[in-house]
Amino acid sequence: MNVGDRHYRTIWLADDGRSVDLIDQRWLPHELRVETVGTVDGIAVAIRDMWVRGAPLIGVTAAYGMAIQALDDPSDTALQAAWEKLHETRPTAINLRWALDEMMRVLKPLPPEERATAAYKRAAEIADEDIELNRGIGRNGLEIIRKIAATKKPGEPVNILTHCNAGWLATVDYGTATAPIYLAAEAGIPIHVYVDETRPRNQGAQLTAWEMAGHGIPHTLIVDNAGGHLMQRGEVDMVIVGTDRTTANGDVCNKIGTYLKALAAHDNGVPFYVGLPSPTIDWTVHDGLKEIPIEERSGDEVSLVWGKTISGEVAQVRISPDATPAGNPAFDVTPARLVTGLITERGIAEASPEGLLELFPERRTKAA
Amino acid sequence: MNVGDRHYRTIWLADDGRSVDLIDQRWLPHELRVETVGTVDGIAVAIRDMWVRGAPLIGVTAAYGMAIQALDDPSDTALQAAWEKLHETRPTAINLRWALDEMMRVLKPLPPEERATAAYKRAAEIADEDIELNRGIGRNGLEIIRKIAATKKPGEPVNILTHCNAGWLATVDYGTATAPIYLAAEAGIPIHVYVDETRPRNQGAQLTAWEMAGHGIPHTLIVDNAGGHLMQRGEVDMVIVGTDRTTANGDVCNKIGTYLKALAAHDNGVPFYVGLPSPTIDWTVHDGLKEIPIEERSGDEVSLVWGKTISGEVAQVRISPDATPAGNPAFDVTPARLVTGLITERGIAEASPEGLLELFPERRTKAA
Repeated sequence: MNVGDRHYRTIWLADDGRSVDLIDQRWLPHELRVETVGTVDGIAVAIRDMWVRGAPLIGVTAAYGMAIQALDDPSDTALQAAWEKLHETRPTAINLRWALDEMMRVLKPLPPEERATAAYKRAAEIADEDIELNRGIGRNGLEIIRKIAATKKPGEPVNILTHCNAGWLATVDYGTATAPIYLAAEAGIPIHVYVDETRPRNQGAQLTAWEMAGHGIPHTLIVDNAGGHLMQRGEVDMVIVGTDRTTANGDVCNKIGTYLKALAAHDNGVPFYVGLPSPTIDWTVHDGLKEIPIEERSGDEVSLVWGKTISGEVAQVRISPDATPAGNPAFDVTPARLVTGLITERGIAEASPEGLLELFPERRTKAA
Repeated sequence: MNVGDRHYRTIWLADDGRSVDLIDQRWLPHELRVETVGTVDGIAVAIRDMWVRGAPLIGVTAAYGMAIQALDDPSDTALQAAWEKLHETRPTAINLRWALDEMMRVLKPLPPEERATAAYKRAAEIADEDIELNRGIGRNGLEIIRKIAATKKPGEPVNILTHCNAGWLATVDYGTATAPIYLAAEAGIPIHVYVDETRPRNQGAQLTAWEMAGHGIPHTLIVDNAGGHLMQRGEVDMVIVGTDRTTANGDVCNKIGTYLKALAAHDNGVPFYVGLPSPTIDWTVHDGLKEIPIEERSGDEVSLVWGKTISGEVAQVRISPDATPAGNPAFDVTPARLVTGLITERGIAEASPEGLLELFPERRTKAA
């Protein structure tokens, strides 16, 4: 999307035709740094050290890593070594694994001298397919926003609350939860976005707010504590969040704190939507609360806060006593009963086994 | 309560017999600074610049301000000037006004030469009365903790979640929401406290965590987003929070984010209690959501986070883009239907008009 008057993707082929340019997101929102990466090792560092994050973007970055390898040395042995090197950067990332396997599927049958060209082509396709998925979510979510806008006085914005960053920075472009927002902006519908800061890592304050500011979308940063109050006061028309994993029952695993917003939305009759590409539906898992293990991350993410000092450098400060331990569950599960709808690229599903199967009938066949 | 092996109150008469020593809380949790304040101007600064905070503590500090004035110049004119100077430091603080009026009530009828002695006596009494109120809340809340403890395996702690700081630092000693916790610790009941960091001002991370660490109470700092997840997983046995104002209907106005925790407690069958001294019940207000205006504070509290840098100095960092505005509602209202009980010094009331009147029948007569 736009950063001021220029359009960006998070990753693109560099001018040399073999490296990739990507936004090193560690410096956002304080600095926009674009790095050119031309080696498999460099790609591995970019993924491992979280220059890029977000499942779709990690997958695309890894795909380009395989393409760079195919240009350097397209042998089976070299490709397998690159697969392993890239896979171990984020071994639990499902999209990463999928993209690496997909590249292998395309390259393995080809003679080595044809692999580089095919690899760059397939990596570019994966990037474009991600954008198309997100635009599909965006088109379906746009209809919801349009309906709410129709109930407003002229010029009055639709107020949308979002949590964490399921924005274009987590994908190649458009984002998942933010795609409907960007398409609404393109359609000229007045919108205003409440951005949850999303402690502990502040992806809302650092990334989503930066996206909104860059694209010129009116927005307000709030603490994660504030959403309930705003909903009580009628200041939120809808909630849209992303998801790491949605179960076959419609339970939604997403960034910690999502569940609290869903409770508040439910208590105040505010529709609560989840924007998701259908590949993130995990048809093998049913009860999200019972079946999804929640990652416990370092307490330092809670105790230490990153930001820009008054002198302009990026530094971290400790907000709590040295003697105080911190707990840091990274995700929570929002039960399907609190979800108004699942916005996928194919349409909007009710968050229930039946609702999902209605939209994805091919899964019904497989289950039977 | 204890800070390591020494017992502290937040404020006490200094060795010179006329000044007060008080903890300058702006430096917590990184440094324990005790300041001696011996002038009315100094007291006004300590209140206005939030060296001390919390309604009860502000009241006691102001009372000592009047005592210092009565020693310096006990004339009606001088006392009235001190009343005004102290009142304007936090003009909306009800306890502040109450303490100033109470001092005037005691001093005005006395001949000027008797006023200083009476003033220091009354200020000390107000401090002691605050402690007694809190111990009353503590004793009643202790019974709840004791009952939960009885359902636990030997040695297994009662897990208590609290939001913001309604601790001894907000009072003279014991605190309101924390009094049951401290009395449970004194009674040898194993407890563990989940401390919400309480964005934006981080009173949980800075003050409650420091209290717990100082008194040796096992505790874990968590982000405000995490409580719902912990309740879903059965890791919270009860919630206790404080309140700025409770309505005659039992609606609870407290720090922003309290409502979200009450929703999660309700959704998971976790009892949600509010510890409050009965003077904070506002019998003139009924529907908290409709009748209580919510203070909107500076967005800088959201965008800028205070903490200790790696070099040990206290500084603030900006967590969001310069171009992003922030909204900052300071409180929210938790509807009575989500409150399991109101723990007062007199007993535990059901959060309803009838429940409150049962515990405070003298109010029934006045209403009739």
